[in-house]
Amino acid sequence: MRTGVWLVGARGSVATTSIVGALALRAGLAGPTGCVTELPELRGPALPAFTDLVFGGHDVVSTPLAKRAEALAAAGVLPGRLVAALPEELAAVEHELRPAPTAGTQADRAAAIVRDLSDFRHRHGLDRVVVVNVSATEPAARPHPAHADPAALHAALAGPDEVLPPSSLYAYAAVTAGCPYVDFTPSTGLRLPALGALAAERGLPYAGHDGKTGETLVKSVLAPMFAMRHLAVRSWSGVNLLGGGDGATLADPAANAAKVESKQRVLGETLGYEPQGGTRIEYVEELGDFKTAWDLVTFAGFLGTRMRMEFTWHGCDSALAAPLVLDLARLTAAAHAAGLAGPLADLAFFFKDPLGAPTHSLAEQWQRLREFTRRLHSGGGHADRG
Amino acid sequence: MRTGVWLVGARGSVATTSIVGALALRAGLAGPTGCVTELPELRGPALPAFTDLVFGGHDVVSTPLAKRAEALAAAGVLPGRLVAALPEELAAVEHELRPAPTAGTQADRAAAIVRDLSDFRHRHGLDRVVVVNVSATEPAARPHPAHADPAALHAALAGPDEVLPPSSLYAYAAVTAGCPYVDFTPSTGLRLPALGALAAERGLPYAGHDGKTGETLVKSVLAPMFAMRHLAVRSWSGVNLLGGGDGATLADPAANAAKVESKQRVLGETLGYEPQGGTRIEYVEELGDFKTAWDLVTFAGFLGTRMRMEFTWHGCDSALAAPLVLDLARLTAAAHAAGLAGPLADLAFFFKDPLGAPTHSLAEQWQRLREFTRRLHSGGGHADRG
Amino acid sequence: MRTGVWLVGARGSVATTSIVGALALRAGLAGPTGCVTELPELRGPALPAFTDLVFGGHDVVSTPLAKRAEALAAAGVLPGRLVAALPEELAAVEHELRPAPTAGTQADRAAAIVRDLSDFRHRHGLDRVVVVNVSATEPAARPHPAHADPAALHAALAGPDEVLPPSSLYAYAAVTAGCPYVDFTPSTGLRLPALGALAAERGLPYAGHDGKTGETLVKSVLAPMFAMRHLAVRSWSGVNLLGGGDGATLADPAANAAKVESKQRVLGETLGYEPQGGTRIEYVEELGDFKTAWDLVTFAGFLGTRMRMEFTWHGCDSALAAPLVLDLARLTAAAHAAGLAGPLADLAFFFKDPLGAPTHSLAEQWQRLREFTRRLHSGGGHADRG
Amino acid sequence: MRTGVWLVGARGSVATTSIVGALALRAGLAGPTGCVTELPELRGPALPAFTDLVFGGHDVVSTPLAKRAEALAAAGVLPGRLVAALPEELAAVEHELRPAPTAGTQADRAAAIVRDLSDFRHRHGLDRVVVVNVSATEPAARPHPAHADPAALHAALAGPDEVLPPSSLYAYAAVTAGCPYVDFTPSTGLRLPALGALAAERGLPYAGHDGKTGETLVKSVLAPMFAMRHLAVRSWSGVNLLGGGDGATLADPAANAAKVESKQRVLGETLGYEPQGGTRIEYVEELGDFKTAWDLVTFAGFLGTRMRMEFTWHGCDSALAAPLVLDLARLTAAAHAAGLAGPLADLAFFFKDPLGAPTHSLAEQWQRLREFTRRLHSGGGHADRG
Repeated sequence: MRTGVWLVGARGSVATTSIVGALALRAGLAGPTGCVTELPELRGPALPAFTDLVFGGHDVVSTPLAKRAEALAAAGVLPGRLVAALPEELAAVEHELRPAPTAGTQADRAAAIVRDLSDFRHRHGLDRVVVVNVSATEPAARPHPAHADPAALHAALAGPDEVLPPSSLYAYAAVTAGCPYVDFTPSTGLRLPALGALAAERGLPYAGHDGKTGETLVKSVLAPMFAMRHLAVRSWSGVNLLGGGDGATLADPAANAAKVESKQRVLGETLGYEPQGGTRIEYVEELGDFKTAWDLVTFAGFLGTRMRMEFTWHGCDSALAAPLVLDLARLTAAAHAAGLAGPLADLAFFFKDPLGAPTHSLAEQWQRLREFTRRLHSGGGHADRG
Repeated sequence: MRTGVWLVGARGSVATTSIVGALALRAGLAGPTGCVTELPELRGPALPAFTDLVFGGHDVVSTPLAKRAEALAAAGVLPGRLVAALPEELAAVEHELRPAPTAGTQADRAAAIVRDLSDFRHRHGLDRVVVVNVSATEPAARPHPAHADPAALHAALAGPDEVLPPSSLYAYAAVTAGCPYVDFTPSTGLRLPALGALAAERGLPYAGHDGKTGETLVKSVLAPMFAMRHLAVRSWSGVNLLGGGDGATLADPAANAAKVESKQRVLGETLGYEPQGGTRIEYVEELGDFKTAWDLVTFAGFLGTRMRMEFTWHGCDSALAAPLVLDLARLTAAAHAAGLAGPLADLAFFFKDPLGAPTHSLAEQWQRLREFTRRLHSGGGHADRG
Repeated sequence: MRTGVWLVGARGSVATTSIVGALALRAGLAGPTGCVTELPELRGPALPAFTDLVFGGHDVVSTPLAKRAEALAAAGVLPGRLVAALPEELAAVEHELRPAPTAGTQADRAAAIVRDLSDFRHRHGLDRVVVVNVSATEPAARPHPAHADPAALHAALAGPDEVLPPSSLYAYAAVTAGCPYVDFTPSTGLRLPALGALAAERGLPYAGHDGKTGETLVKSVLAPMFAMRHLAVRSWSGVNLLGGGDGATLADPAANAAKVESKQRVLGETLGYEPQGGTRIEYVEELGDFKTAWDLVTFAGFLGTRMRMEFTWHGCDSALAAPLVLDLARLTAAAHAAGLAGPLADLAFFFKDPLGAPTHSLAEQWQRLREFTRRLHSGGGHADRG
Repeated sequence: MRTGVWLVGARGSVATTSIVGALALRAGLAGPTGCVTELPELRGPALPAFTDLVFGGHDVVSTPLAKRAEALAAAGVLPGRLVAALPEELAAVEHELRPAPTAGTQADRAAAIVRDLSDFRHRHGLDRVVVVNVSATEPAARPHPAHADPAALHAALAGPDEVLPPSSLYAYAAVTAGCPYVDFTPSTGLRLPALGALAAERGLPYAGHDGKTGETLVKSVLAPMFAMRHLAVRSWSGVNLLGGGDGATLADPAANAAKVESKQRVLGETLGYEPQGGTRIEYVEELGDFKTAWDLVTFAGFLGTRMRMEFTWHGCDSALAAPLVLDLARLTAAAHAAGLAGPLADLAFFFKDPLGAPTHSLAEQWQRLREFTRRLHSGGGHADRG
């Protein structure tokens, strides 16, 4: 089952780490630490092998992939020896990267993306191509009447307006090209009624959104802990200090707001009430690709006794996100092969703000993910239409 | 279903908080924060109501319960207004407390305990009495051949030796008196083959051991998080600073070792490997009934990238333990009423070192606990023999 | 040397704690923990004794002082037993509190304040009255041409405009009444050219501003540590979570900006360069009178090796500020008695944003404070004009 | 002023980092971050220039210096580019390293060390050689009657006993060879009456001991902060997690005890009382050359209000120690050149357990160091006898 993985934002830190990692895994130079689809509970025949993955993608910048990989190695995100060991493999992926189309109407640009996707699929004889958005977070999208309905959308895209934010234009093109789609960012992506309808029409599965890689991951186990123990969380306040490309983007208040809202959702939905406090994102360039989050939780126990918990998470976002990108590409490909369509709510495990939001408890999400892969591996769903 | 709760260590901080809390709940002066059996997922008709609980117990010290409660209020563990509002109720419980028997052979002392338990039961017309050990942690017990077998144990207890550690003598007496038993401490208690055999003979359920109230609670959700994400935990080091009675006891290296071992078990069993590092317990009198734990976790992600997490837990052990004592008394009473016998592995949710150790993941333990209570409420198990 | 202490914001948490504490000290019910003027290095005959202090003040609210004290006791800021032991003493102070004048032009209000100050002084036969501003933080003041010059100010105050922010109106009245003045908040207070000129004219000393009670205190020893070790601080990011009245005020972005700026100053001035990062203030009502600050410092050592330090400060602002208010009242009174006038730069030890800013290193500020008190105690300065 | 720096433990992490750093500084490849003698307040003509330093040393292991440097680069302690840029310079130092003498009586071994020192001095035409002990921490030395007196010591060394611990044998040899001596470790070194007498006889200065590079550095500014603010420290508990060579050594309880005692001294001496709590050192191999220390301080403020502070220090011991080794070599050489002899109490700034212990406050130590260097630079002390 040869599977294309088309990365929107293909020269970014997450994408580059995903590519180097997949190449290293394929070459037997690295193990699958961080890849949940390689855990005994989840792995199995329905998932494409790492050797079956072929990478391509779009980006607005043109820095060579190898340069980006070297920069990540210098920053301690990747081992330099892996980059040094894979020059030809990286060059081969470089060959599959395309500049983001910028000319013409949005319809013209969508058509160019569809062409790139189809060419990629045919060039490599792929059973399918999963499109994964790992580009920088956008500000919240401005509403537009054409977002409600496929026909209106078609018409509007041919006009001069910027009807869709970039992430949604890629989602539109992916659906048009018959490709399953994964939203790894908090950007709008496929979350517009018109795009959901189109994906349903085309029988395409999609997953999202906003990869859960740090503070929210921890929240998704600690909040259920407080809930299961019937402890009353009085306040939960957090700060995220981050450098790197995403940090700079999130310094923009509008993007910050989108991300922060998705970060706090887990609390209210898990606890059943909203504790005081909020989450802040601050850009500190010096931290580079690493992120430090600090959270303070105050809570009351029996008879009202006040207690508190603090945690500091010092993680490398790219190293945490990249294996999940590979997991999601494999799982979404397998879902497509199994004939599943629409939002994959069973992949909530991976996301801060999961589609269909069945639960925000990591343990329950894990349970659903296990059952989902079990069904896939036992041939559940429809026959492979690839 | 009138249920006795007999506390071994009845004048200690945990017992006193349990008693004041139960009296306050019964009087409508406090809510059930921290009582998991009052969560919608668990509550139901099989559990004795708070108004059905009658308290008694043994202790080696004789400080009046009301004095202990006032001291806890002064230390910020209990609201003073509750203590002030319940003088008669506390006096009534005071009336049910007995000095720990100290005269004669261990057989004589066991007989005295059995008499106290039976008298308590008859005096109040109780359906059953659950014995809960909340006394100070003992050093690890010295092995004795009579631990292996009920008959040998009977014989040895009549002699001059200290065959059983105190916690196990209480467990022996509880079983002899036909009482279900809960081990809330890391002491030996019922965990000797001879005692397990006796409980089975008598058809008695028991639960244990070592209430999970702080650092280990957090570990039981964080360790599964690392496992579910396939992250490689490299080291997990912790320190527990605690004052109060238990702190002083644990300053004793032998008791410390017992507790520490039970604290680290969750890691190896959840992760499938032993990370480096260990857990320390230090006595800092100044901290009183509060405990501060700090843990550092270092872990590797995709391609070996090193990351770290720290947490500080600042909890009041008594306030965390007391509602669980009430939960365990209710659940064990209901299990007994339902005709269940032997170790209650489904109560692993409450313990650092659960009997039968089905899993150390809090989420899985919660799942088992939900199913267990569902069965109880739907009349599962045998008929009430109370 | 009978000394009046007139508190602007006399019913606030800091003022109430100062008053209760001074009364408790005078009654021998509490020790001088937190009062630096009671350290062997600083104490001496030039300072008025606690028994020589008489309290009065203005406030915009009218909650009885005893009620405020009880509320602080309930919140764990004050021991309840002290409040219970001092009912008459508190009633006596209550008698000296006045509503903040609100009628008429600013000139009218200033005149009313001057009258209250003079009456207080004469009523108690005081040698002098020190006015201390401990009211809630104001937004940054709007510039006004009359701020530059005493004559212009006199003229403008008689008009209908709000020429001065409230803190400055009190400073103006204090100077007019011949009272030394202490700015314990980041509000404008006496920091306007016209007011400085008036104080100089009247030969009055003044101190400020913005009491250094938490995160900034820690910064004022850690930043010099990094500097003395020639370590390169790359980033210093902090967050302050605070409840209580001041927290709510600081939720106002304008006030927040004033406070934050004063908090970061210590870094640039101590290190000689501006590290990345900033400080945030967040209001979390649940934290009450306590404040939790978390700071992350990243720094480079020899050959560029990256290292980091974090600290969490969990302090009670009122309990930290109140003894300093007493210290400042005593020191400023002694300075006045010694004939000193103008900004007291030697009191930088107490402030986040010290007047004359001789240094931000706590150790150097301490050195200056020691020399200052040594001069006072040895009769330095001019003769007492009290 | 050509100055030899003879490192005992010359292939260890601290020594290797010192050597690579000094070579890089000399070659203009790195700046003096972390070198306090390059601060404007301290630098001056009395100190030998980096270009005047010549390195040699003893070690019990024989791993090539370049290999050790590469290992440190791989561990993130040193930039690999520096190691790669200095192959000849490192080879030249390699040429000056000698195996630690192991044959014969202690007198024989001392004589061999003296020969190595003298040869080194003559070979390079050095004005003087400073011996710096940076070898692994020893267990506390066993007392021996010969420690009291030079003559007894001479006699005993010629016998078959291990009279002196290794660090003291090196100190003895250094003094015999006329070399100033620096104790950077908590080992006994020169701290025996017989050795002090010999150094005095020979007119040699010496400094020590136990370089202050992490948790204790922070304590030496925080403890004075609490003292200056008259806050009552109730408990101060710490844990140090460390990997690397020193960590393994300190896992030995005897060495641990020595180090821990020296770490706590700062508190009692600065505060004037002993707070509760203690410091632990734990070996966690995984942490490598980095060290994580966590401290919890509980303190009382005005009227007894309880507050707390925590800090985490994540430092690289070698990167913190190495520049101080260079500083100490320069300062001790200058002291020798100036004719100073005996313990250099003015260098307390550098040490956990300073000789002569004038103060444990970093700020006061800094003041003394400034005055000391000012005297040196202005030609204070006697004429250069080099």
